[in-house]
Amino acid sequence: MTLNDQVRAALDAGNLAHLITLNADGSPQVSVVWIGLDGDEIVVGHLGESQKVRNIRRDERVSVSIVTGGVNDMGLDEYLIAHGRARITDGGAPQLLQQLAHRYMGPDVKFPPMDDPPAGFVTRIAVDRVGGVGPWHGPR
Amino acid sequence: MTLNDQVRAALDAGNLAHLITLNADGSPQVSVVWIGLDGDEIVVGHLGESQKVRNIRRDERVSVSIVTGGVNDMGLDEYLIAHGRARITDGGAPQLLQQLAHRYMGPDVKFPPMDDPPAGFVTRIAVDRVGGVGPWHGPR
Repeated sequence: MTLNDQVRAALDAGNLAHLITLNADGSPQVSVVWIGLDGDEIVVGHLGESQKVRNIRRDERVSVSIVTGGVNDMGLDEYLIAHGRARITDGGAPQLLQQLAHRYMGPDVKFPPMDDPPAGFVTRIAVDRVGGVGPWHGPR
Repeated sequence: MTLNDQVRAALDAGNLAHLITLNADGSPQVSVVWIGLDGDEIVVGHLGESQKVRNIRRDERVSVSIVTGGVNDMGLDEYLIAHGRARITDGGAPQLLQQLAHRYMGPDVKFPPMDDPPAGFVTRIAVDRVGGVGPWHGPR
């Protein structure tokens, strides 16, 4: 789907994202990641071939959950859930992580902190459905 | 498993929790919830029989992911993931939600805001494994 401006803003604001993938036995796997946008895709950088990378190679179904900082009429914290399909591309992780580190850690941060980081992997997520509680008015 | 003090503190501190359940087609479902502890079980209150309640009735496997507010040596935000098995018990949701509202919203809050809320459901999660990044030193 094409992301509207409110969804884009929530995904691009430096909010920590909970990335959910599926293990081989079908159970959920979660880790907290930095995210960015590349066109309408959510992008995540990985220096190593972690469990989530292996999971996505086997099952493309992922969800991303973000607390977005707002509060609704009932006083409840707003959040956005993006459900989609992910693919792994090789390389580009240090460049993406450095770009995201400026947003998530600060303008002067060097990240990854090592001089010669591995090329790693980038996860690219095409969003099929947006939910949660917030101005994007997604389904429950 | 028996939860150690550091895990208990992270789960009981009023941090918003991302609760992951599994849909009938095996895809992940997520919502952001308030959590408490009852003994070694994580408890979540629901006024209605939402998708997550129906999912847990069918598949007990759940994960709970929490950003805990600390920062590790590399400057990365700490988070805790609890993987476990959930069961639904009938009733008790308004009492639990009122108790949690004091922690999550403020000491004077009335929640649920209505006078005669439904008895609802309580999800009880027995934790099998703890991961994430933080002083509890869980596996990756």
